[in-house]
Amino acid sequence: MSRSGVVTALRRDTDLTGNGDHALPQPYLLFLGDTVEAGFAKTAFGLRDWAGDMCVGEYALPGARVSTGLPPLTPAEAQQKGARALVIGVANTGGVIPPHWVSALVEALEAGLDIISGMHAKLGDLPGLASTADRLGRRLIDVRTPPPGIKVATGAKRSGKRLLTVGTDCALGKKYTALSIVRGLQTRGVDADFRATGQTGIMIAGGGIPMDAVVADFVAGAAEMLSPDAAPDHWDIIEGQGSLFHPAYAGVTLGLLHGSQPDLFVVCHEPGRTDMLGTAGYKLPSIEEVIERTVAMGRLTNPAIRCVGISLNTSALSSAEAEAVIAETTARLALPAADPVRGGKSFDRLLDACLA
Amino acid sequence: MSRSGVVTALRRDTDLTGNGDHALPQPYLLFLGDTVEAGFAKTAFGLRDWAGDMCVGEYALPGARVSTGLPPLTPAEAQQKGARALVIGVANTGGVIPPHWVSALVEALEAGLDIISGMHAKLGDLPGLASTADRLGRRLIDVRTPPPGIKVATGAKRSGKRLLTVGTDCALGKKYTALSIVRGLQTRGVDADFRATGQTGIMIAGGGIPMDAVVADFVAGAAEMLSPDAAPDHWDIIEGQGSLFHPAYAGVTLGLLHGSQPDLFVVCHEPGRTDMLGTAGYKLPSIEEVIERTVAMGRLTNPAIRCVGISLNTSALSSAEAEAVIAETTARLALPAADPVRGGKSFDRLLDACLA
Repeated sequence: MSRSGVVTALRRDTDLTGNGDHALPQPYLLFLGDTVEAGFAKTAFGLRDWAGDMCVGEYALPGARVSTGLPPLTPAEAQQKGARALVIGVANTGGVIPPHWVSALVEALEAGLDIISGMHAKLGDLPGLASTADRLGRRLIDVRTPPPGIKVATGAKRSGKRLLTVGTDCALGKKYTALSIVRGLQTRGVDADFRATGQTGIMIAGGGIPMDAVVADFVAGAAEMLSPDAAPDHWDIIEGQGSLFHPAYAGVTLGLLHGSQPDLFVVCHEPGRTDMLGTAGYKLPSIEEVIERTVAMGRLTNPAIRCVGISLNTSALSSAEAEAVIAETTARLALPAADPVRGGKSFDRLLDACLA
Repeated sequence: MSRSGVVTALRRDTDLTGNGDHALPQPYLLFLGDTVEAGFAKTAFGLRDWAGDMCVGEYALPGARVSTGLPPLTPAEAQQKGARALVIGVANTGGVIPPHWVSALVEALEAGLDIISGMHAKLGDLPGLASTADRLGRRLIDVRTPPPGIKVATGAKRSGKRLLTVGTDCALGKKYTALSIVRGLQTRGVDADFRATGQTGIMIAGGGIPMDAVVADFVAGAAEMLSPDAAPDHWDIIEGQGSLFHPAYAGVTLGLLHGSQPDLFVVCHEPGRTDMLGTAGYKLPSIEEVIERTVAMGRLTNPAIRCVGISLNTSALSSAEAEAVIAETTARLALPAADPVRGGKSFDRLLDACLA
């Protein structure tokens, strides 16, 4: 199946907040600034890989040494090709937008594009940008800002089917796993949507809610809003956040788990990682512990919750090592394990299990 | 021991945020508006009961039919008696400040008092109030607004001892239990502070962090900030929030549990309550389930965590019924159970257990 087919499906229901105003303007022009290291352009690469037919091209400043391989276009050229927004596709340490990018952003506004950012710094705080956008009737969209109107969770059961990706830690593949499962299910003709909970996921899906930025009392309510009532055979595949075993983020993880009411969950893990990200001496839990704890806690809002499989991030391993750890994990847990990025038969078996 | 002795101690360390600017201005003048039902004046009664020597008097508008029993004073008279702030001691449905209260608030500013509010509506949004405060150099303090500078939790172990109150549900006595334990420990000469996590508690303590208003990623970090490193024999008694079994608020409860790193916890419960507050058909967990789950989750940041006793809210029961349920709970769980509001020998045994 082509990427574009999937992407169209991902965008099919972008009105995730029940309010059409919060669907992101697409297609995108990907802005790379003057970035020299590919590691800082993860957002641009993620959009290319998962929302390729929504990206008309890229726009880089002199000095940039990173490319997505998409056609280089000025904002005016991109607008001619149908782009509706320039997306800041790069991050830097600190999440700030440097002053020498501003003239390019103004150029985009003047070419008729909105601007979308996932940086910590707000677009409206950049000197002159808000007034220019106002004057031209263009939007400055910070995807880290949650939509208005989020309510406290009710815990009421919703129709449709849901799968949540959870993790032994942060930043080990929960978004890519969810996207891969959506793609896989859609390839099989299953009615499935990706539900984004982080900035890059939101840009890919064209909508979603940045869970980590929601006020604490409303996290479960935001998760309820994110995957509303749906047809009985419809699947929402929800991007997980954090880990129930992370001393800083477990509360967000739990609110997302409770509000999502998942029928199934996939545990995401990176073989070889031993320490929790950004903490003082916290060791990773075992996959078994994550399964047990997720069932124990998730049962509150969905008594039928169960683990359907394991997603292993084997990007640091050779092909043979990856195969070995996938086989070992599958045998040990009696659950299908796979690396969705590698795909293959093991991932097919994980998809089989989702639909069984 | 007199209330005033306790209250002074409660205020001893008001700089909960590491920044003296966030200690609330005390003493208070309690504002009752034109409230006619005592149920809406809970904040004023709580302040009278737990911060009595910080309340110089009350100020009511014509038509009010509620009194704390404190001397009626105008803002000017209160200022003469040392008051530094007028506290809005009443709430109404919706948490809004009615327009006909504004002239009294302006009068307080002109008399030299700051204004403190725990309502949902922000003081600065009331017509004319912000400009008057600016002109007079007075502060408008919304205690539902978290302090700036909250960081992501590190999970690093802190010195000193900590006790957290947890609950089978919301709104059944976690704040009163924490306050009672602080008072009881101080009566025994123990160095103990009350750590407030909700609006009324913050007004009583003169500082604290409104956990439910913190952005989700920072809840555990806020809890770490709230009970900083302390002397080895110092006790922080931390006001709990929500319940690990509440489908809307469990995430906040978990973040507070992880950041607080409690050595001990007290489970608060209201005998006879069967349904979780504000949910669709969620039943209360048993005290046993709350103990098991709190230990399982709390062990992450403090492996030595244990339940030290049970606080029963028996306000709806007769004295004989209360004694019976306290005795039954003590026997069933092999842990001291008590109603701190009733006090007595059972509560003494709970305090004994805290210090054992």
